[in-house]
This record gives sequence, structure tokens and C-alpha cells, in this order.
Amino acid sequence: MLQYILMPLILVTNDDGGSSKGISVLSKALCPAGEVYVVAPESEQSAVGHSLTLHRPLKFKRINSKTYLINGTPTDCVILGVNRLLPQKPDLIVSGINNGSNMGDDITYSGTVAAAIEGTLLGIPSIAVSFEGQTQSRKNSSRLHEIAMFTKKLAGMVLKKNLPQDTLLNVNIPGSVKIKGIKFTRQGKRVYDNSIQEMLDPRGKMHYWIGGDVTMWEPGEDTDFEAVQNGFISVTPIHLDLTNYSALKYMKNKWKI
Amino acid sequence: MLQYILMPLILVTNDDGGSSKGISVLSKALCPAGEVYVVAPESEQSAVGHSLTLHRPLKFKRINSKTYLINGTPTDCVILGVNRLLPQKPDLIVSGINNGSNMGDDITYSGTVAAAIEGTLLGIPSIAVSFEGQTQSRKNSSRLHEIAMFTKKLAGMVLKKNLPQDTLLNVNIPGSVKIKGIKFTRQGKRVYDNSIQEMLDPRGKMHYWIGGDVTMWEPGEDTDFEAVQNGFISVTPIHLDLTNYSALKYMKNKWKI
Repeated sequence: MLQYILMPLILVTNDDGGSSKGISVLSKALCPAGEVYVVAPESEQSAVGHSLTLHRPLKFKRINSKTYLINGTPTDCVILGVNRLLPQKPDLIVSGINNGSNMGDDITYSGTVAAAIEGTLLGIPSIAVSFEGQTQSRKNSSRLHEIAMFTKKLAGMVLKKNLPQDTLLNVNIPGSVKIKGIKFTRQGKRVYDNSIQEMLDPRGKMHYWIGGDVTMWEPGEDTDFEAVQNGFISVTPIHLDLTNYSALKYMKNKWKI
Repeated sequence: MLQYILMPLILVTNDDGGSSKGISVLSKALCPAGEVYVVAPESEQSAVGHSLTLHRPLKFKRINSKTYLINGTPTDCVILGVNRLLPQKPDLIVSGINNGSNMGDDITYSGTVAAAIEGTLLGIPSIAVSFEGQTQSRKNSSRLHEIAMFTKKLAGMVLKKNLPQDTLLNVNIPGSVKIKGIKFTRQGKRVYDNSIQEMLDPRGKMHYWIGGDVTMWEPGEDTDFEAVQNGFISVTPIHLDLTNYSALKYMKNKWKI
């Protein structure tokens, strides 16, 4: 008789869209670790943060029995994937491999991390994986496979050991340097450059573009940024309880309004 | 000679849009506390989370010397306001009064809170203010003024005492019940209802809407939710360092990858 082995159910998503190289390499690499479903945005959704689509209907395109594209954000993908498209609640959510890193304060803008936040809110162990380099670049092909294999290993670890409550893993992988190993890190702090580019449109009206400058970081031991800069894969446990408990204690005692 | 009194500079924004009643009442109430600039989204931006507009140009409409509307998110408003529209870096950012509460895990979706996150990242003390009820409803007019006066008081407190590093204040105000006082609280936890409404479009194709069900919360002493439910104004200090330090310590010791 055919022996039936129960494989863990893995939902893979991202914010670069379903046709990106990062999600394709990742979902293939995770196949031996579980039954992999891909539910990804139709189009690129970078810097959408933890956005929900409330004001227009969501639709999906079924590419095959285990691949769906959604006209929404990574958060929408997780919600629709978990509640409608997958046969049952997944055992693990992996978001990535993102084109570009998601470190320090920038994680609050990240659609890649937002998908892992949504997974964690739904009680599913979740990992966000971002690559400092260009995922689409041909020269990064072997690095991308290296990242996917590492993620498979980490996924196995998470499936075996689970994650602390309300906590996701935010993984960042160095770009050009040789990978020296893995470091568990804390969230680093960006030096804000406030970069805005001013331009005139064809009608002579001023308009503005956000971003564009090189990101700088405050130096800090054990941070995600320092690990990646020094050639290590950074794994940061991110907590969804944002309360500043020491501030809370202080304000309870000292602030009289 | 005319005596020149230096007033603190206050940036007011929101995610309901510049024409909402909440921001109008709030900005008027803050006038005695400082020089108030309003930089708000042109249109409603609810549930946009901490989104940045990277893929299209931002423009502003100058309503008067201290009021601007932006074709972007609350985060965009803070970035453009602080870096281009205000005469100098503001001493305080107040985001609200939002139509509907922003408590527990839901704060990661909130445009109102996102504006305060961006302010905090820029090193400016920031407060997000949300009202459990409908800000536009005529019956809530006096409550809205009550909230605005409380926020003025809190703003004065923050300007005097400052806030702990990387920490914003998330304020939620009860809807219909009488306000009994103020409580400093921790972030509560939502019970996830996974509500998705399925509907057929006019062509018979299935589509989905997220949300719609009543929000439930895990009971928990000292949470934002419990305070508001019991008729108290909830003030939660929210930290931008999301590292789970106890998990980090554990993983460093026990996880061998």
C-alpha cells in the first residue's frame, strides 16, 4: 500500500510580485521541505508596509493548483491565502526572497516583512527573507540559490522548534561579499537622510520623489546592519508587541495629566 | 517694541484626509499651544500602514500659508511636511483625530499611527489620536472637542517632558460611554476573526472584501482595549525597536544552524 507522508504546508509570498526571480527560486527550494503554495501580488508592491485593501474588491488568478496571483498587497495575499486558497492553515509562511534588504527601522515600510507580520498575527510561524543585492541580476543567480537553500534549512528549524509567541524572523542576506556565516541580531537604526528629489514636471510644476540616497546606519554591535555589512546572514527575531514597557512604568508613576 | 514669543511648531496630519472633521477640530484646538501647520492627504488613506509613495511623483496643494494637501499617504505628508513645507523641523507631530480606534495589533495597519512612526523616526515627539466613534457624526461634536482639548493638554505635557527615545504615544478615546479618566496602557491583542466577505461581481466572477466583522480582543489587564472599553482614554507608549530580546538571547544560545 502507498504510504502517505504528511508534509508541512508552506505558504510562500513576497512583495516583488509573482513573476519575480526571488519567489520562483525560493518556492522551488522549499519543495522538499513541504507542500508549497505560492500566493503573491500580481504586481510589485514595494514599500506598501502593512497595508490592507479595504476599498476595492480583491480577485485572484489561478495559475495552477498551487499558485495564485492577487490584485493586492502581500498582507492581502496572506489573508486570502490562509482563509480561502490553501486547503488548510499553513504550518509556515515564507516571504521573499526580496530584491533589496529590509533592515532596521525600514522594516515598518516593508511589504515583505508585512506578510510575515500578518502570518504571525494569524498564529503561523513566519519568516521574511531579503537580499541586499539585485535578485533579477544574472550574476546573483548562484547567490540566490545559496539563499534559498539556507532558507530551506531555517524553515526546517522553525518547523521543528517553532517560534516564540508573536515573533517572526526577519532574515537579511549580504549582496556582493562572501557569506561568512549566520548571526542572530537586533534591529539596527537608520541615520535619516531625509532624501527628497525635487523635479519640475513637463508643465513646469514642482513635484517630489521620496528616497534615492544611500542608506546610512548608526553603528551598533549585534545589529542586522552590522552583520550584513560584515558578510553574515542576519536573523532578527521581531516582536509584534510594540509597547515600551519601561516608558509605560515611568509614565504611570510620573505623568499626571 | 513688539515682543516676539517663540511658539513651538506643531505639524498636524491624519489618514482620513484634510477635509475630515477630526483634523479640523484638532488643529484649531492646538492653536493656543503652538504654531500649527496642517499637512494632510488629499483623500482618505485608511489602512495604508506605513506606506511610502516611491513610484509616482508627490505634489502638494497649498490651501493657505499653513495648510497643505498631498496626493499621498500620511507618511508622505510627514516627510514632505518636515523636509519641504514647514519653515523648520517641528517640535511635535500630532496625527488624528482618527475616525475609528487604532488599538492592539491593528496599529501596524494604521495610517494615523504610521504618521507618528515617521515623526519618531525623524526624531520628533509624535502622538497618534484615534476616536472609537464616528468623527463625522453630529452627535459626537462635543466629544470631538473634548478629545481635542485633552490632546492639547497631552501635547503640552509632551512638549514639556519630551518622550523616551524611539517612542511615540498612541492615544485611543472611547466612543459612546462617558469618559472616566486616563490610563497608561500596553498594546492589546486582537482575536483574529479572519473575516472575508465573498461576493459575485456583475459578470458572475467571485471577488473578496477584507474585514467587516466586529473586532474582538483577548482580555488583558492594562491593555488599550480594556481601558477604552471601561471608559478611559488609553495612552500607550509604542516603541520602534521591534527586537524580541529574550528570543534573541535564547536563539543565540540554542539554535545551531
